[in-house]
Amino acid sequence: MYFNDPRLQYPVRVDRPNPAFARALQQAIGGVEGEIRVCMQYFFQGWGARGPKKYRDMLLTTATEEIGHIEMLATAVALNLENAPISLQEEIAADPIAGSVLSGVNMKNILSSGLNAMPVDSDGIPFDMSHIYASGNIAADLTANIAAESTGRVLAVRLHNMTDDPGMKDMLQFLIARDTMHQNQWMAALEDMGGVQENFPIPNSHPQSEEKSEFAYTYLGFDRAGAPPVQGRWSEGPSIDGKGVFSSAPSEPMGEEPMLSPPRMGGGAQSGQMGAKSLIDKIF
Amino acid sequence: MYFNDPRLQYPVRVDRPNPAFARALQQAIGGVEGEIRVCMQYFFQGWGARGPKKYRDMLLTTATEEIGHIEMLATAVALNLENAPISLQEEIAADPIAGSVLSGVNMKNILSSGLNAMPVDSDGIPFDMSHIYASGNIAADLTANIAAESTGRVLAVRLHNMTDDPGMKDMLQFLIARDTMHQNQWMAALEDMGGVQENFPIPNSHPQSEEKSEFAYTYLGFDRAGAPPVQGRWSEGPSIDGKGVFSSAPSEPMGEEPMLSPPRMGGGAQSGQMGAKSLIDKIF
Amino acid sequence: MYFNDPRLQYPVRVDRPNPAFARALQQAIGGVEGEIRVCMQYFFQGWGARGPKKYRDMLLTTATEEIGHIEMLATAVALNLENAPISLQEEIAADPIAGSVLSGVNMKNILSSGLNAMPVDSDGIPFDMSHIYASGNIAADLTANIAAESTGRVLAVRLHNMTDDPGMKDMLQFLIARDTMHQNQWMAALEDMGGVQENFPIPNSHPQSEEKSEFAYTYLGFDRAGAPPVQGRWSEGPSIDGKGVFSSAPSEPMGEEPMLSPPRMGGGAQSGQMGAKSLIDKIF
Amino acid sequence: MYFNDPRLQYPVRVDRPNPAFARALQQAIGGVEGEIRVCMQYFFQGWGARGPKKYRDMLLTTATEEIGHIEMLATAVALNLENAPISLQEEIAADPIAGSVLSGVNMKNILSSGLNAMPVDSDGIPFDMSHIYASGNIAADLTANIAAESTGRVLAVRLHNMTDDPGMKDMLQFLIARDTMHQNQWMAALEDMGGVQENFPIPNSHPQSEEKSEFAYTYLGFDRAGAPPVQGRWSEGPSIDGKGVFSSAPSEPMGEEPMLSPPRMGGGAQSGQMGAKSLIDKIF
Amino acid sequence: MYFNDPRLQYPVRVDRPNPAFARALQQAIGGVEGEIRVCMQYFFQGWGARGPKKYRDMLLTTATEEIGHIEMLATAVALNLENAPISLQEEIAADPIAGSVLSGVNMKNILSSGLNAMPVDSDGIPFDMSHIYASGNIAADLTANIAAESTGRVLAVRLHNMTDDPGMKDMLQFLIARDTMHQNQWMAALEDMGGVQENFPIPNSHPQSEEKSEFAYTYLGFDRAGAPPVQGRWSEGPSIDGKGVFSSAPSEPMGEEPMLSPPRMGGGAQSGQMGAKSLIDKIF
Amino acid sequence: MYFNDPRLQYPVRVDRPNPAFARALQQAIGGVEGEIRVCMQYFFQGWGARGPKKYRDMLLTTATEEIGHIEMLATAVALNLENAPISLQEEIAADPIAGSVLSGVNMKNILSSGLNAMPVDSDGIPFDMSHIYASGNIAADLTANIAAESTGRVLAVRLHNMTDDPGMKDMLQFLIARDTMHQNQWMAALEDMGGVQENFPIPNSHPQSEEKSEFAYTYLGFDRAGAPPVQGRWSEGPSIDGKGVFSSAPSEPMGEEPMLSPPRMGGGAQSGQMGAKSLIDKIF
Repeated sequence: MYFNDPRLQYPVRVDRPNPAFARALQQAIGGVEGEIRVCMQYFFQGWGARGPKKYRDMLLTTATEEIGHIEMLATAVALNLENAPISLQEEIAADPIAGSVLSGVNMKNILSSGLNAMPVDSDGIPFDMSHIYASGNIAADLTANIAAESTGRVLAVRLHNMTDDPGMKDMLQFLIARDTMHQNQWMAALEDMGGVQENFPIPNSHPQSEEKSEFAYTYLGFDRAGAPPVQGRWSEGPSIDGKGVFSSAPSEPMGEEPMLSPPRMGGGAQSGQMGAKSLIDKIF
Repeated sequence: MYFNDPRLQYPVRVDRPNPAFARALQQAIGGVEGEIRVCMQYFFQGWGARGPKKYRDMLLTTATEEIGHIEMLATAVALNLENAPISLQEEIAADPIAGSVLSGVNMKNILSSGLNAMPVDSDGIPFDMSHIYASGNIAADLTANIAAESTGRVLAVRLHNMTDDPGMKDMLQFLIARDTMHQNQWMAALEDMGGVQENFPIPNSHPQSEEKSEFAYTYLGFDRAGAPPVQGRWSEGPSIDGKGVFSSAPSEPMGEEPMLSPPRMGGGAQSGQMGAKSLIDKIF
Repeated sequence: MYFNDPRLQYPVRVDRPNPAFARALQQAIGGVEGEIRVCMQYFFQGWGARGPKKYRDMLLTTATEEIGHIEMLATAVALNLENAPISLQEEIAADPIAGSVLSGVNMKNILSSGLNAMPVDSDGIPFDMSHIYASGNIAADLTANIAAESTGRVLAVRLHNMTDDPGMKDMLQFLIARDTMHQNQWMAALEDMGGVQENFPIPNSHPQSEEKSEFAYTYLGFDRAGAPPVQGRWSEGPSIDGKGVFSSAPSEPMGEEPMLSPPRMGGGAQSGQMGAKSLIDKIF
Repeated sequence: MYFNDPRLQYPVRVDRPNPAFARALQQAIGGVEGEIRVCMQYFFQGWGARGPKKYRDMLLTTATEEIGHIEMLATAVALNLENAPISLQEEIAADPIAGSVLSGVNMKNILSSGLNAMPVDSDGIPFDMSHIYASGNIAADLTANIAAESTGRVLAVRLHNMTDDPGMKDMLQFLIARDTMHQNQWMAALEDMGGVQENFPIPNSHPQSEEKSEFAYTYLGFDRAGAPPVQGRWSEGPSIDGKGVFSSAPSEPMGEEPMLSPPRMGGGAQSGQMGAKSLIDKIF
Repeated sequence: MYFNDPRLQYPVRVDRPNPAFARALQQAIGGVEGEIRVCMQYFFQGWGARGPKKYRDMLLTTATEEIGHIEMLATAVALNLENAPISLQEEIAADPIAGSVLSGVNMKNILSSGLNAMPVDSDGIPFDMSHIYASGNIAADLTANIAAESTGRVLAVRLHNMTDDPGMKDMLQFLIARDTMHQNQWMAALEDMGGVQENFPIPNSHPQSEEKSEFAYTYLGFDRAGAPPVQGRWSEGPSIDGKGVFSSAPSEPMGEEPMLSPPRMGGGAQSGQMGAKSLIDKIF
Repeated sequence: MYFNDPRLQYPVRVDRPNPAFARALQQAIGGVEGEIRVCMQYFFQGWGARGPKKYRDMLLTTATEEIGHIEMLATAVALNLENAPISLQEEIAADPIAGSVLSGVNMKNILSSGLNAMPVDSDGIPFDMSHIYASGNIAADLTANIAAESTGRVLAVRLHNMTDDPGMKDMLQFLIARDTMHQNQWMAALEDMGGVQENFPIPNSHPQSEEKSEFAYTYLGFDRAGAPPVQGRWSEGPSIDGKGVFSSAPSEPMGEEPMLSPPRMGGGAQSGQMGAKSLIDKIF
């Protein structure tokens, strides 16, 4: 169950409203790297966490924090839109980025939301929940979270470098720091569960003796001329999960060319796919 | 540039066609954990790889392998649908899962594709390319790839455990082994780039001295009553990236309640939001 | 800013787990009538509320409640899936709905989430955030909320009538009661703002003297033979907003047939659309 | 069954073509507040209307009108794009909004449709039919229609205020007037069915004695410190549906912390979620 | 402008309601091969038709017909759902397809629409308008229409073969006949414009002398070993457009390996992509 | 199975990087007319091709070519973005299109991909796989392919005409030539299967004697006043498939007004739809 406080987690201040930056900030709300994604991802992972209770607690705790991050960013978008043009006749010169402001705003931030934030990305695409990765396997979920916080921090850094507004830079440095923690937090949870060697390959509940082990630690090349694939840490030495030794090799087909049966009568295919057209004519 | 061979990478054999399993296999083609996703993700990461050339080569090599995996699974779906009912009047008793086969098939596998695979998931949802994570930051991309191969292997194991068809089990054990390698491969690439401590927090090109460092290694609790958050590896000891020390604390709001300005005249809001209705009436 | 408590808002109990009912409950989580929708809708409306502060407070308060409803339903889905088949070989007889259980489950609830809830509807479609209506006009938002709670309560009633599990019925009667309140709450907020006559037509900040008033209170018929349209409260008497008198009439075209200019040279159209092909040949 | 007339319902005239305004008008075609939405919504509501025939007739009548509105807007978009640049080398100075025209146009209006309207919103997002609310409950449908016409009229007013083209203003004042009627029309239909007190809470066919009535008229607060929620018309006095009396109260959890069972063997979870890893090893 | 008649274009009769067939029929409404698609495609092509007026007229005429087809199918879905189970406790034996009916129905046809048609496909996916191909090039549009009516008639035939209900078969044979006409109609319109040789390659307004003509009529093979590609009508003889002669050849790369510049400072990439980490440290 | 070569199929050269053109090129990657679409369409058609093996071979061969086209375009996008602004403070004057560059770029090409290509269209919409038409009927698939290559070549021509960069024009003239071939190739494959008269109406395996033949070759008009529909090649003379003679006629309804039964008790409808409210009250 959840509770609220009308104040923000961290101050949000915009010194010089900039509608083009409002558009950019939308990516951190409704983009696939954004805060709705991590918020909902941690909630669904937590609500479905089976096994040790502490992971559920941690997931729901951080999910709760992320609502507050969406709130901060939604506030930042609204503040950046304060002076945005809402008419094609307004004085363009009054805008911080001369000459291209209306073009640079997501139209829906004007037409659909009345100069407020929306759950869309920087090109106006609504977030869709297929991006909520909650697999029922906690280690897999943690890798998804590390990835989400990595692209999330990349985005926050790009936004930080895009603006010179001191208020916005301050807010973003806070969010960047939280992403630092969250990257570390999910890696620490993985270590708490036993670390890479205990947990990989994910899922670790499948007996590796049954998989085709001759393909489990080989880096395969697919150069058309059979050249060996590019070498690196992945092509020799012990595997990262500690359960194999890397090797590498070019590939050759091991299977045959597939043969599907012809379409069935009545299946809506073309008669030429089933045999002679004249034959078909006779049948009907 | 790309080339083909009409044969499959690994043999695909279905001993007892099962339309319900065809439906399940669709998840491995067009699901967010599926092969179209990793194929396209590695391609776009590779085509956009800036920096050391070897990562581009490795990404495009494995992307090329993944086309062959989609092909194997598409073949498996078609073979499992060989005897599927295409009429509501067909003898249901002839089916492997008595009584519920037509219900258990994605209708589109009958109506739209003529008993073939489609680029959709196990509930018939078409794959959408927003799931292709290619951030321009190679370390972030690698974490996305580790995550993708983790959920991918979880899915392959679930599919393996769902069927008792020997041919399908054999194919899946091959794909499971390749997922083992690919998890290790992307972790090895991260190690090749310097490992966790060199690369985290991602991006490592943002000077950490500028982020709000007091929040960068603190696990924050959001218990309404101020209880300390659940403790673990993430709340004390050195951080995983080696650049901080974990601590934990309950949270309090640091910001104020946001104040947005009232809607502007002509902005399509309600007059009651702007001030007295009677005032509005006077203005117009 | 937001806080949590590990307990649920209201008890969730499943007496006889039923995977088919888990599928149905997904509609109340990720369907367009579901709880993610109202939760996110009230949050974005609240974060963007301009004008009297009390509406912002009320919106964020109820948004916060709705997170807890998603949590309750996610728990209910997981509990209903406790005994779901995860193999096509499992004994079907052990299931509450004999013969069709695996067919009746969303495959992704098995394959993608490990028998947990997902942010998808009852056919496995992920929720997408384009359904978050937050217009910047509070009265328009309130009508959207009345509508959302109306279809939401219809759904909850259908779910209630679909199950005979006492625990599930108890939980749903709680959610139905909350929907009763929320329908009333948004209507009360509209009354708080002055009621129907003060607020309609929405937006009330557009001077009605400027709209084409001869069409503003006329119910138009489009019967091909010019028959008068079906009569009712909408075709005579004072209008509901109190600003006009209803009438009705059949329609005739008032505009001309549109004439678009031919495609431009170099615009990728067919030469036959631009004029004679031979002419085109001469030009190039 | 449907028929057409080549003329428009109302004249569409563009005095000074403006590609940026064409982009904005797209929102009224393919946005969630747009005409495709209401057209298809009324059609599906009408085709599925069960009960008194007059509501079906009215729904299909107005649905038919809305096709003509899409047609008018599509014409307006095409006319506004007449002089749009189709080359990055064209003289930008010749455009009505100097300096930013090509940036301000949806690229697809040039590249995909050849300077014509598309069924997309102002940011180029295609309309999707999940926005067609047709619940089988006529009162719920009417609330959805009131909401749709409210956001629709807000949008039309914003578009009207964005342009200074006399032809476009004239067309929009016609559409604004029709939205005035349609808001009133759907409210009148609700009154025709007995009004708010007869119909709410929707659905009125669920016996309210069975719902948890202690929660049916209480405005719940979720302030973390237990402060009472903001007061208003929704917290005291008779409820709007006339069936209860409003009250308000802070909330406390009534349920327990949920306990899900551990993942099952073979379900693709991590061994650490199921118990000791060493145990798992013994089992396989 | 459009008009309606309350009667159907062709009688719709269901002799034995079958909810599973209702699900299948949804594909013909909201599937990509369905009637919403052709209806909206012809409307948008017509509204944007530039050039000879007769094509606009023909497109809008047939678009108008298609609304009536959606109406017929929506009626058929509702009639097939008349006796569908709405409770998990109802007698299953009363259903036409024993044992799997509820599983075989799209849940949303029960939960969201109250046993009515929805604008979704047979797996419950809402139609999205990105499938409306209206390119501004009439010949390209006609090829899209031929394709749409081809897959549409394949679908109608599959539906016809799936049912043994005489009423449904009668309706489908009408729709199949209309698809026969529409396939012919769009091919006839192409002939009306001058036929294949006049119109292909589409667009015919691009001077072929400028394209890389050595690749314009060559069937390229991509066999990894350089084997010649499979021969057929496409590899020798005059080209279908009459403007070239087919040949065939294996392919070799003509370009170089691409070299992208390293990521820029401040662009959020990894320092290892830009050069030495120590260098980066110095810069900041 | 598939193989790669690190070189490009054809040289990609950008003489003057132009971020606005990068945005336009995205349509050729992730637009519905783009290369991902044809690539995946030909792959799925090929993997599911039942009947003569040569069509499978041809489809997979050309699918393999199309991967290389995506690669070329992805390279072109990255090269056009080389100098794109990544900050709202950068000198705008340094850009090729003064004054509107940042507005003219898809924000995600900066924020999400680090100045690289993405699988999205020119307005940033991700490609979704519902556009992969693979029907199991080869003739229907070929018509879909002709259509895809027609809109594809229209797009390529528009892109060619939009730019004056010699490198980009050279690459596009190569792609335009390949589209010329592919249009011809799919038409040739149709001829190889017997041509229009052998294959139409598609599917040709449905006995035409069973369809309602009186509607199979009649061009129907829907003018509200009963005017005859516009005449052309489609209204008289032999049909294109050679199996009928065209005629034309205005339409009249042949069906009745549909009568649906009232909603069922417990189905969540309004009591007014089922009968008297007082009756309902008695029942419960």
